[in-house]
Amino acid sequence: MKIHWSRIKKAQELMAENKIIALMIMNHDDYRYFFGTDRTQPRAIIPVIGEPIFFAFEAEKEELSRELQEKRQIFTFKKVQEQMSGIREVFRNLIADPSINELLRVKHSLEQKEKIKVGMQLWFSTPYFLVELFQKLNAKLKIVSSDPVMDELRMVKDDSEFDLLKKAQEIAAKGMDRVQEMLQPGVTEHELATEALYTMMKHSSEGTSTPIHINSGVRSNWIHGMFTKRIIEKGDLVVVNLTPKFDGYCANLARTFVVGKASKRQLNLFETYHQIVLRTQEQLLPSKTPKDLDAVGEIIAKENNLADYHINGISHGIGLRFEETPASTIIPVHRRVKLKENMAMTIGHTILAVPEIGGVRMEDIYKVTSKGGKILHPYPLDNWEIK
Amino acid sequence: MKIHWSRIKKAQELMAENKIIALMIMNHDDYRYFFGTDRTQPRAIIPVIGEPIFFAFEAEKEELSRELQEKRQIFTFKKVQEQMSGIREVFRNLIADPSINELLRVKHSLEQKEKIKVGMQLWFSTPYFLVELFQKLNAKLKIVSSDPVMDELRMVKDDSEFDLLKKAQEIAAKGMDRVQEMLQPGVTEHELATEALYTMMKHSSEGTSTPIHINSGVRSNWIHGMFTKRIIEKGDLVVVNLTPKFDGYCANLARTFVVGKASKRQLNLFETYHQIVLRTQEQLLPSKTPKDLDAVGEIIAKENNLADYHINGISHGIGLRFEETPASTIIPVHRRVKLKENMAMTIGHTILAVPEIGGVRMEDIYKVTSKGGKILHPYPLDNWEIK
Repeated sequence: MKIHWSRIKKAQELMAENKIIALMIMNHDDYRYFFGTDRTQPRAIIPVIGEPIFFAFEAEKEELSRELQEKRQIFTFKKVQEQMSGIREVFRNLIADPSINELLRVKHSLEQKEKIKVGMQLWFSTPYFLVELFQKLNAKLKIVSSDPVMDELRMVKDDSEFDLLKKAQEIAAKGMDRVQEMLQPGVTEHELATEALYTMMKHSSEGTSTPIHINSGVRSNWIHGMFTKRIIEKGDLVVVNLTPKFDGYCANLARTFVVGKASKRQLNLFETYHQIVLRTQEQLLPSKTPKDLDAVGEIIAKENNLADYHINGISHGIGLRFEETPASTIIPVHRRVKLKENMAMTIGHTILAVPEIGGVRMEDIYKVTSKGGKILHPYPLDNWEIK
Repeated sequence: MKIHWSRIKKAQELMAENKIIALMIMNHDDYRYFFGTDRTQPRAIIPVIGEPIFFAFEAEKEELSRELQEKRQIFTFKKVQEQMSGIREVFRNLIADPSINELLRVKHSLEQKEKIKVGMQLWFSTPYFLVELFQKLNAKLKIVSSDPVMDELRMVKDDSEFDLLKKAQEIAAKGMDRVQEMLQPGVTEHELATEALYTMMKHSSEGTSTPIHINSGVRSNWIHGMFTKRIIEKGDLVVVNLTPKFDGYCANLARTFVVGKASKRQLNLFETYHQIVLRTQEQLLPSKTPKDLDAVGEIIAKENNLADYHINGISHGIGLRFEETPASTIIPVHRRVKLKENMAMTIGHTILAVPEIGGVRMEDIYKVTSKGGKILHPYPLDNWEIK
């Protein structure tokens, strides 16, 4: 465990600006971002002033204290109800704290009846019932998305984060090599996924952030993916997307292969997508938006008579969460988020899929630089025929 | 794909009783329960009257239609906004449907201003932001938990479901064998997890429903689990929990091992837990509640001087979701749910953990019968010393 005090300090400044009394951390990625480690039930409160407060099951206290090295506030519980009442107590104390009141109410001239805001990550990993329960038990608080705080902190990555993302991509590449070795008529999607996952875990992956995609044949058209027990046939398109994690950082490496020789229409898909990737990479520049990036692909698809099949969402942010801001296919307003130098973005997220033919995509992670996207770990892009 | 019409019919009867206009399916387990298959974005609406309506990305229509065999209503989209407006349109039509109005408003004398209810699964896999968005776009509807419909359907399992759960447990047992083979000082938690997962996938598992738990040493006290790169040492307690899935059905096999000879206090933990499991199994009877089952363990813990360390939650429902009703550690009121014959329940969910000593648990899946719990796939319970 390594508490990142400078990140906490910056978060607190942003909380103060956004009139947020505290961040309620209940997810793996923010927990790891602040505390440099993970646990199964990551629970902490970072108040706008002061030190973080940790929550753990009573029998875990020994281990958590050891991890924390120095004495920190740990609230323990034996029952789920005790965890809830502990959280409520912490917030009651924060609301009553004179210096916090001074900061939030006086500085911002917040009216007494106006609810104090608490920031929470409201992405896929935060279930409705937990937010509802939290709201019911903490009626004086208003839950708001923690994005205005966390995006500001997490969108631009530091060197140590790029090292981990690169390492994750290297592991993904080992998995992709293994898939290519095995890919031939008769093998199943399940066998490919099994061996790819094993290879990646042997190379230190913690598992994957999404299910492995081995989308073959008619399923290559899927917008998302998984693997089934389908047997691969000659001529199939096979979309492979590997998302191993390393120290919490998420890889995203996708390639599409054709088993045998590409037909003319398959080749058009491969070549078009390849061109979209290369041209989008050039445009991965500070101040560009996901909308600008999608416009690149739209033109190229049109030039290649594939305009009807172009869909938006070529690029998304990535880091400790598989999709981070900007993630315009999840949150449409993110289409207008401006890129900044040293953001980590993927290119190749969307499928270019034609009914009766199949789908193609090829995704990698890039660093946004003033010269365009710099790929973290190059992996062949035009090696699509498996002979 | 195999549409289970009898399950849909029963769901519709329960929807009518509960004044629910439709189920909005957005999760893997209910989708599989009704349609016998899975997809990455499972989306369907089952109205109180009529046939299910499916949602899919435009390029997936070809594949989905093929899967459905007969012509069914498929709503396709290219953008996330189109998916949302499609769902809204379907609900507008349902609200306007005269026979549905007759059924819900007239039969139940529902007032015109009273909102029509839509049932949604509100467990871990339903994120807050999706429910919020749905509510905003469908202001005339009130979202309610689909549990009153789905629990009634899913709590009691049929023979085909028990076959799949048994198969999943058999796969878990293969993984546990592999862990035992490898477990010795010097091996890491990560290596054990890697090999266990590989073994289970080679035996047809689709992956696991939760992260593999290899909680060793001081981490054996954890209430939940994961694996780290910690090196196992002599004398460590190692809690292993394996949750492979087979055709969507979730295994749950946990064992605790000691690397070497158990100390006296470790032995007390093993023997106490073993006794708790066996005595709880006898009580896994129709009409008993999770509260009754926890009372068994409480007494045994007391008899063995471990009263301070006993926690509730020894048993939970399992099936297509890793935790199903009753799941009293998630939803405290489930402590009073009465068991019925042919429910699938685990015994061994909670950890018996003592600071400085470690934690022990041993979990299996049982069928509730009038003679007590019948284990689905027996696996040695008292084989805890790894020599």
